[in-house]
Amino acid sequence: MTERSWWGWGTTDRELRDDECVAAAAGLPGLPARPRPVPSLPDLPAPRVAVPASLSVSTTPFARASHALGKAYRDVVRALTGDVGAPPDAVGSPRSEADVVALLDWAASAGVAVVPFGGGSSVVGGVEFRGEGPWLSLDLTGLDRVLEIDRVSRAARIQGGALGPVLEDQLRPHGLTLRHFPQSFEFSTLGGWLATRAGGHYATLHTHIDDLVESMRVVTPVGISESWRLPGSGAGPSPDRLFLGSEGTLGVITEAWMRLQDRPRFKASASAAFADMTAAMSAVRAISQAALYPANCRLLDPGEAALSGAATTGECVLVLGVESAFHPVEDRLSELLDLVRDSGGSIAPPSQGSGPADAWRSTFLRMPYVRDGLARMSAVVETFETACTWDRADELYATVRAEVAAAVEEVTGAPGMVNCRFTHVYPDGPAPYFTVIAAGRPGSELAMWDDVKVAAMEVLGRLGATITHHHAVGRDHRPGYDRQRPEPFAAALRAAKAALDPAGVLNPGVLIDPV
Amino acid sequence: MTERSWWGWGTTDRELRDDECVAAAAGLPGLPARPRPVPSLPDLPAPRVAVPASLSVSTTPFARASHALGKAYRDVVRALTGDVGAPPDAVGSPRSEADVVALLDWAASAGVAVVPFGGGSSVVGGVEFRGEGPWLSLDLTGLDRVLEIDRVSRAARIQGGALGPVLEDQLRPHGLTLRHFPQSFEFSTLGGWLATRAGGHYATLHTHIDDLVESMRVVTPVGISESWRLPGSGAGPSPDRLFLGSEGTLGVITEAWMRLQDRPRFKASASAAFADMTAAMSAVRAISQAALYPANCRLLDPGEAALSGAATTGECVLVLGVESAFHPVEDRLSELLDLVRDSGGSIAPPSQGSGPADAWRSTFLRMPYVRDGLARMSAVVETFETACTWDRADELYATVRAEVAAAVEEVTGAPGMVNCRFTHVYPDGPAPYFTVIAAGRPGSELAMWDDVKVAAMEVLGRLGATITHHHAVGRDHRPGYDRQRPEPFAAALRAAKAALDPAGVLNPGVLIDPV
Repeated sequence: MTERSWWGWGTTDRELRDDECVAAAAGLPGLPARPRPVPSLPDLPAPRVAVPASLSVSTTPFARASHALGKAYRDVVRALTGDVGAPPDAVGSPRSEADVVALLDWAASAGVAVVPFGGGSSVVGGVEFRGEGPWLSLDLTGLDRVLEIDRVSRAARIQGGALGPVLEDQLRPHGLTLRHFPQSFEFSTLGGWLATRAGGHYATLHTHIDDLVESMRVVTPVGISESWRLPGSGAGPSPDRLFLGSEGTLGVITEAWMRLQDRPRFKASASAAFADMTAAMSAVRAISQAALYPANCRLLDPGEAALSGAATTGECVLVLGVESAFHPVEDRLSELLDLVRDSGGSIAPPSQGSGPADAWRSTFLRMPYVRDGLARMSAVVETFETACTWDRADELYATVRAEVAAAVEEVTGAPGMVNCRFTHVYPDGPAPYFTVIAAGRPGSELAMWDDVKVAAMEVLGRLGATITHHHAVGRDHRPGYDRQRPEPFAAALRAAKAALDPAGVLNPGVLIDPV
Repeated sequence: MTERSWWGWGTTDRELRDDECVAAAAGLPGLPARPRPVPSLPDLPAPRVAVPASLSVSTTPFARASHALGKAYRDVVRALTGDVGAPPDAVGSPRSEADVVALLDWAASAGVAVVPFGGGSSVVGGVEFRGEGPWLSLDLTGLDRVLEIDRVSRAARIQGGALGPVLEDQLRPHGLTLRHFPQSFEFSTLGGWLATRAGGHYATLHTHIDDLVESMRVVTPVGISESWRLPGSGAGPSPDRLFLGSEGTLGVITEAWMRLQDRPRFKASASAAFADMTAAMSAVRAISQAALYPANCRLLDPGEAALSGAATTGECVLVLGVESAFHPVEDRLSELLDLVRDSGGSIAPPSQGSGPADAWRSTFLRMPYVRDGLARMSAVVETFETACTWDRADELYATVRAEVAAAVEEVTGAPGMVNCRFTHVYPDGPAPYFTVIAAGRPGSELAMWDDVKVAAMEVLGRLGATITHHHAVGRDHRPGYDRQRPEPFAAALRAAKAALDPAGVLNPGVLIDPV
């Protein structure tokens, strides 16, 4: 029986041991010899509201502490030092949509803020509350059922609180899969993916969960919004697209009809090395524009390739994967590899289970646990991701690395690591994902992290790159988002929120300011 | 030098001659022996407002009559009888975005309604005005330039008023194409496509113009909304998706960065016959779910196949096309044809320029002219399109045909033709497009058309099929749209409109009621 960590990523059985923390931080100068201990549950202030007994809530210290923060580096560091901010006064645990309605009704009438909570994996301050007064964390994981399957249309009606493995387990007997695998897959929910426009398994084409949505059912304070199941429509602006990315500010997503995939039967993958990022980007651009749609097309820069063990001699590594439920995919892979060769890439010999793709994948899933281990060593760790058009990709890569590295050196006093990979690619540009690791100092980690974050946001905004490709906006990315979204659109969004959430109780501070 | 018809589709040189009108109507019982004459420009009431001389407008009878109505059957019949409703009091003809701003400013301050007008091809009452008081038709075709091309990212910044051929002519020298070819291609604009979520060339995958948008620039009465050029983003609800489908109610689209394609070098096509729609639908469903993404995948039911000359012995015909700028496509076509055979289809022998695909395409482009000729003969002609999930496709096809045919017989007193084709298909369902042709009576055509339209809207709504896949909502589809859109979404949209268009001058009556 595994237990979710209240303070860090995932389950407690996969936390790094003390010696693993030390090993993970080897090479970072000036860190403590031993990690901070795993924290004990802190004493919490007494709840400030009495929730009517008819409502489904929990007020145990574990529930409140587990729902106080997300899983950003800043959350983990705060929890490690016993600071969980202002924990929720209660944690709602609805078992039905009617429970959600009842909780929202009560909250609106009592003026209690409501922060929807799926798996709690937000790395952008999306599930905490930074306002005054009491608040309710609305944990939706009790709504975790696949309610209906339409095999003919290859779609399913799924409740918003289903965690990734929970929904896939219910689809598997039908030979179907949503095939949406963000890094947080085990610890995030369908509703959370929809509310944050999560990025998933597919590196090309259907990258975001948005494209997999057939219809959505959303409980708003003024009523339930349910769009029709439609494969396509041109009837006015898409209702679903207003709720996709609304991050809990407009309503609570209780159900969605999702487009599914047949389980892939044919797969092929390969990897290639490039001498430098310019050549590698050229190959990836050619691939992205050739309408071949590989499922995987992840480019690791030299630092990222070294970190994951995919390469050790300074090359960039491109990992390609093709899959199909219907047809052999070798020809498709050959076409992709032709493009790789044309751009000067060296195809790696086929590997059996331990090649760069596997090395990288294993690192990918373990990385959040390592991040927590590094945090316990007082290292500063940040990941941020973006997207820009190809004409700016070279400049973005170079400038972000240079400026963030300079910020790291300035705030920590020593050089740090700033790596990059492309997680998703489009015909008109890539989605670069940056990882920063540097030596911090006990007690100063958060100030350092904030400074790195400011530097990253500044350079992204200056270059016209999005503040987030799939991590969402939350509270931490507000400055970058406020710079990015057109002001008339923000006015429209504020007006829409005022119409749907007149009491202003839904996730205040996310995306737009409380009116 | 061809001239645009003020009353009918397209250019006057392609209007049907009288004998062609008679021939087109052969087989429809009880029609007049000769067509109504092509109408002369009617006398128009004097303009009710004086537009300041500094603004770019026209008040000639031709300009006002040409902008009074769209190109729905009801519009053509009205124009044929000299009734152009309430024509615009002036036609704005901006040459720059500053002109658009100036016209909107004046209209908002003067309380004059503004109806944005691209190519004027609306078949849903989208470009007329049914309110009281003076109004301005805002013709955007003066803004028709490709302003910038980013070859690396394969994108271009294009003004909203560029007609299809105008923008393609500017892209061709660069080896690029938008490749968005609605039936109205010659007579509709980029801004119109975006405002109405037009459906285009691709039968699968990127069916709507929505997917080809990188960013949009929209003049709203409270300011200009410009989204960043991004290949993908997860930063809040998509600003572009609010304006896509807004049909001129929220702002005027002056520019967009559009994702382009390399011009295809490899093409292959084939057609197949099926004994009945059930087998044909099964094939199309298998194709739509196999991730093969044919550019063309149009299924003609027996009536539609006969009408277009693609088949004459009662079969359904499926037309398939594959294209690529990079790779030979024969293998892809073979995979598609395997699926056709598995579903019992008979592949037609290869043809040289006169096969079913060409026959159908030629009919497709000529159809609106034929529609006008039929209108002159007092035939009743209607097309409407929808989309639904595969689990309901059989029922939808049968029920719509039966109920609309019954309505036709009831209102016209004789059986009519109700044909269907699938214009676009998705993994979760098709987009069926229905064509109705029946004998009317001079003077009763519009009442008959209205009754047919009501019957069609009723059955689509009852079966949960969208009121429109790509023709838009306008004013004619309001009852169906009001049934379809979730009420909380409508509340949000009304609030957004009030925020962006506080004077309520933009296309009043479309999508939502004036507050």
